[in-house]
Amino acid sequence: MPYRHTLTDRVQFADTDMAGIVHFSNFFRYMERVEHDFFRGMGMSIWDGHNVVTDGDYVGWPRVHASCDYRAPLKFEDVFTMELLVEEVRRKTVRYLVRFWKEDGDLSAEGRLIVACVQRDKATGKMKAVEIPQRILEKLEVAPPELIKGPGSPAK
Amino acid sequence: MPYRHTLTDRVQFADTDMAGIVHFSNFFRYMERVEHDFFRGMGMSIWDGHNVVTDGDYVGWPRVHASCDYRAPLKFEDVFTMELLVEEVRRKTVRYLVRFWKEDGDLSAEGRLIVACVQRDKATGKMKAVEIPQRILEKLEVAPPELIKGPGSPAK
Amino acid sequence: MPYRHTLTDRVQFADTDMAGIVHFSNFFRYMERVEHDFFRGMGMSIWDGHNVVTDGDYVGWPRVHASCDYRAPLKFEDVFTMELLVEEVRRKTVRYLVRFWKEDGDLSAEGRLIVACVQRDKATGKMKAVEIPQRILEKLEVAPPELIKGPGSPAK
Amino acid sequence: MPYRHTLTDRVQFADTDMAGIVHFSNFFRYMERVEHDFFRGMGMSIWDGHNVVTDGDYVGWPRVHASCDYRAPLKFEDVFTMELLVEEVRRKTVRYLVRFWKEDGDLSAEGRLIVACVQRDKATGKMKAVEIPQRILEKLEVAPPELIKGPGSPAK
Repeated sequence: MPYRHTLTDRVQFADTDMAGIVHFSNFFRYMERVEHDFFRGMGMSIWDGHNVVTDGDYVGWPRVHASCDYRAPLKFEDVFTMELLVEEVRRKTVRYLVRFWKEDGDLSAEGRLIVACVQRDKATGKMKAVEIPQRILEKLEVAPPELIKGPGSPAK
Repeated sequence: MPYRHTLTDRVQFADTDMAGIVHFSNFFRYMERVEHDFFRGMGMSIWDGHNVVTDGDYVGWPRVHASCDYRAPLKFEDVFTMELLVEEVRRKTVRYLVRFWKEDGDLSAEGRLIVACVQRDKATGKMKAVEIPQRILEKLEVAPPELIKGPGSPAK
Repeated sequence: MPYRHTLTDRVQFADTDMAGIVHFSNFFRYMERVEHDFFRGMGMSIWDGHNVVTDGDYVGWPRVHASCDYRAPLKFEDVFTMELLVEEVRRKTVRYLVRFWKEDGDLSAEGRLIVACVQRDKATGKMKAVEIPQRILEKLEVAPPELIKGPGSPAK
Repeated sequence: MPYRHTLTDRVQFADTDMAGIVHFSNFFRYMERVEHDFFRGMGMSIWDGHNVVTDGDYVGWPRVHASCDYRAPLKFEDVFTMELLVEEVRRKTVRYLVRFWKEDGDLSAEGRLIVACVQRDKATGKMKAVEIPQRILEKLEVAPPELIKGPGSPAK
């Protein structure tokens, strides 16, 4: 589905901190992991260097916003499922919602990423926001409101 | 000042990613760094194991929310100043605002952490939110609105 | 096989640095990942809190040595296979050899971990090296010399 | 001194793991930190993009070997001093020895990095080892054997 993608992973030792739980910053690394897996699932790479694109069409996806609400900690060797939903697609940005589900079905955390589509300006060398290329836009779909409204179920 | 604390740091090579900028997740590690330095500046440690407290008074500070808005990337060896402001103190939580200032005075990012004061419940062994102990509460002060409203100046 | 274990993984974006390759420190995190997966493959956890053991039998595995020789970089989204071999088992330590194989069969890196079996001394509270418990020792086997001598093949 | 450089730092919370100590992989990040500070101390950057060099003279420093022997763990908020010594300078590589000293003067760990001087081959686009440019070579000096032989003292 071009608006929902799940990825199941396991907490690694290096992801934990001395409080015995996954360090809160690692949830953002996990979110990126499911975002990139979502792109691979659609037959693309988040990194245009891995796609077949002309130089002029080469875009990147820096984050303009990232947030996470934490409900229940993840611990070493916990198996968890990330559920990514495309919450909004605008001309130059995409907003993702990512839910972290524990194996017992409890919600561990809920995060959001807003990413901008950017291109290097040939004159200045700086990155600037551009419209999402058609080749990507046509694959993205916004998740139905009832899925966004959730949290419903971690079912894959 | 018990409501504002600054810390100047330098971007390390391992903090960057292949896009040539600080990975967005590291801003959250930076935020925690200035939060902990703020506590040290008040003569305490965020880790009660380093404070003189009785067992019954031992609290921890897990995050219930973390967010960041990114304006301008930080790059390798950039010197930046984090400006932490205490935005709100409630009975069981504290909200921090952290601004990331580049050396040229531009705002790089603005983040927020909401942390809960927790204690291990002796019966269940689980963490539960508790009122912030008086020894900590009496040191915290909320920043004046004009500082919060900023962004004004990175001046230390 | 109790002396060889493989794990295939993919390079994540956050593992790279501004040179466009996996940061050298992350090979050590990868090594630990295959080590822990090796234990799970033998029906155990590296973390005794996840095993059925009595308090007196509870051991941990801090590293006393770690090294890595780098041959060819790994890049974003590269799929690679880690091949762990038990190189030596002594009374209180285990030495692992970990080879990193690229998808094309080239060797990317070769690392070693020496881990000590430790237990908390009840009198002093300090960790001290102890003999590897029988329940673990009986599962470990040393890899045959021809495998160690390799590098032969990344075949799983 | 062009063969010895020290840097004092403090263990951050995110550097620790659930065993309550600095994760072993972070010692490699710490080593890189003192290496890069060493270059800055000599008025250069490890990243030639920050130095005044012609395109043809632009070099990078990937690691070909990294190792660490661990003696005593570092914990949250521990202040430690890294002592970098230039152990060997060859035509295309440099070997660094880095000692980690605890505040009480105890040795926490001892690591080594061997870094190669590389340049992008214009024909193939690949990195290849090259001779260390004179502008860098003339600043490096090999530490006297008695310093290498140490460990003597963490004195700054």
